[in-house]
Amino acid sequence: MGRITTRRPVTRIRGDGHTVRRPDTLAVEEPLEIRVGGRSLVVTMRTPGHDVELAAGFLVSEGVLTGADDLLTARYCAGADADGANSYNVLDLALAPHVAPPAPELARSFTTTSACGVCGKDSIDAIGTRSSFGVADDPLTVTATMLLRLPDRLRDHQNVFDKTGGLHAAALFDGATGEPVVVREDVGRHNAVDKVVGWALTQGLLPLRGHILQVSGRASFELVQKAVMAGIPMLSAVSAPSSLAADLADESGLTLLGFVRGDSLVAYTREDRIDGAAPV
Amino acid sequence: MGRITTRRPVTRIRGDGHTVRRPDTLAVEEPLEIRVGGRSLVVTMRTPGHDVELAAGFLVSEGVLTGADDLLTARYCAGADADGANSYNVLDLALAPHVAPPAPELARSFTTTSACGVCGKDSIDAIGTRSSFGVADDPLTVTATMLLRLPDRLRDHQNVFDKTGGLHAAALFDGATGEPVVVREDVGRHNAVDKVVGWALTQGLLPLRGHILQVSGRASFELVQKAVMAGIPMLSAVSAPSSLAADLADESGLTLLGFVRGDSLVAYTREDRIDGAAPV
Repeated sequence: MGRITTRRPVTRIRGDGHTVRRPDTLAVEEPLEIRVGGRSLVVTMRTPGHDVELAAGFLVSEGVLTGADDLLTARYCAGADADGANSYNVLDLALAPHVAPPAPELARSFTTTSACGVCGKDSIDAIGTRSSFGVADDPLTVTATMLLRLPDRLRDHQNVFDKTGGLHAAALFDGATGEPVVVREDVGRHNAVDKVVGWALTQGLLPLRGHILQVSGRASFELVQKAVMAGIPMLSAVSAPSSLAADLADESGLTLLGFVRGDSLVAYTREDRIDGAAPV
Repeated sequence: MGRITTRRPVTRIRGDGHTVRRPDTLAVEEPLEIRVGGRSLVVTMRTPGHDVELAAGFLVSEGVLTGADDLLTARYCAGADADGANSYNVLDLALAPHVAPPAPELARSFTTTSACGVCGKDSIDAIGTRSSFGVADDPLTVTATMLLRLPDRLRDHQNVFDKTGGLHAAALFDGATGEPVVVREDVGRHNAVDKVVGWALTQGLLPLRGHILQVSGRASFELVQKAVMAGIPMLSAVSAPSSLAADLADESGLTLLGFVRGDSLVAYTREDRIDGAAPV
């Protein structure tokens, strides 16, 4: 649909007052409403494109989908907006009869409880309960040298970022070869990961044993959740993780890497999967 | 509560195999459930601290609160979790009798409609409908020189980022003096802005005419929304804005700045508020 970037006139101003008016390229952000069986589930602000993957990946993260057979069809809403045009912003998914539909309260409020003591531990327990795949026993081992190459390789595939400077990216790498399997970009970093995971679901690749998920930014609880739910044993981030991201990685047996930059990286959990590291 | 950062052992590994085990500081991420009148509204993953401001700012963004008198009390849930400890993660707000409570479907799904044509324009119209303050007629004018100093001044106040590298930041600057009014950090960039806006609400400072909101990252639709709802006429981002952020800024009459770095910046909308810019 060619709606990934858009052009608009901007004004570049220097401190000395020098001013230039010129067109600039921006990353497109538009709402996507995800429906399941005609019922609205969530609205996310995303970069258009790979919408079916985004919706499928979101439902993997929420524990609704675990295999390619779980998703029957995905179609854009057939209606039209006030101007008579389809916005391509409403996507309705039909699940296979054997799949339990998502709970109404799912959406973004998955950690809500009626109890008073909502806490990080509850959030971690909720992931443990809903996860179909284990990552703790994944025998993946890789070298630090290979891991240090991944951010640059991700960057090489960020076509839209080059034009706009405005997109997060996520890529799946084969842990055995270090080669990229799929790369996706989005204005939302959780969307970029959902698109990667949704692609893998539709290709029948779940669980993603032996794979590495490389992300362009920080590692939050939500990103670790998405890796665990897809069966990915290693998450590598260019920037810092949060405490709850490390806690969930610990509990799940996922290898969490941060500050993967230049000639070093930091392993927060399960560093035994990194070969050739000599303690001093 | 001192829960903003936490320490845990990590392993730093270099490409040549050199490995050091040492303690590292991480930014804390914990869920916060926001309740209004005892009813659960939303759960957000946030850095603990300034929770009342976060909740109040969230409700300003959603058009529920517009003045200090609108919020009567805020208290942590009095109960306890399974271990008998208060998690300080459930905050209940009591609104003044004259304030209409938030709609049940508010939360994160504010753009949901039953129509098929959900699109960026709908999202923009929704903000226009709910905004109590106009920013289009704000007579703020500032120099490019002053604007170029703001990212460094924000950075100077990022105490937790210095330790963890893991937090977003938002700061309110006085447009007349260029001095910081309040700075807040959080693992979520929307939370950092909510904390700034919520602080201003409790101080009786809304609408924030003549102020500049400086953020550490990119400018999304959601951040422009928060600025508009708080009556802030200028949003300055270190990185790129999205298309919908620029569209909403355009429609609202907000000055949107991006790539505010080094000796230049890019104005996407309402560059007439920047003094001393000489077109060539």
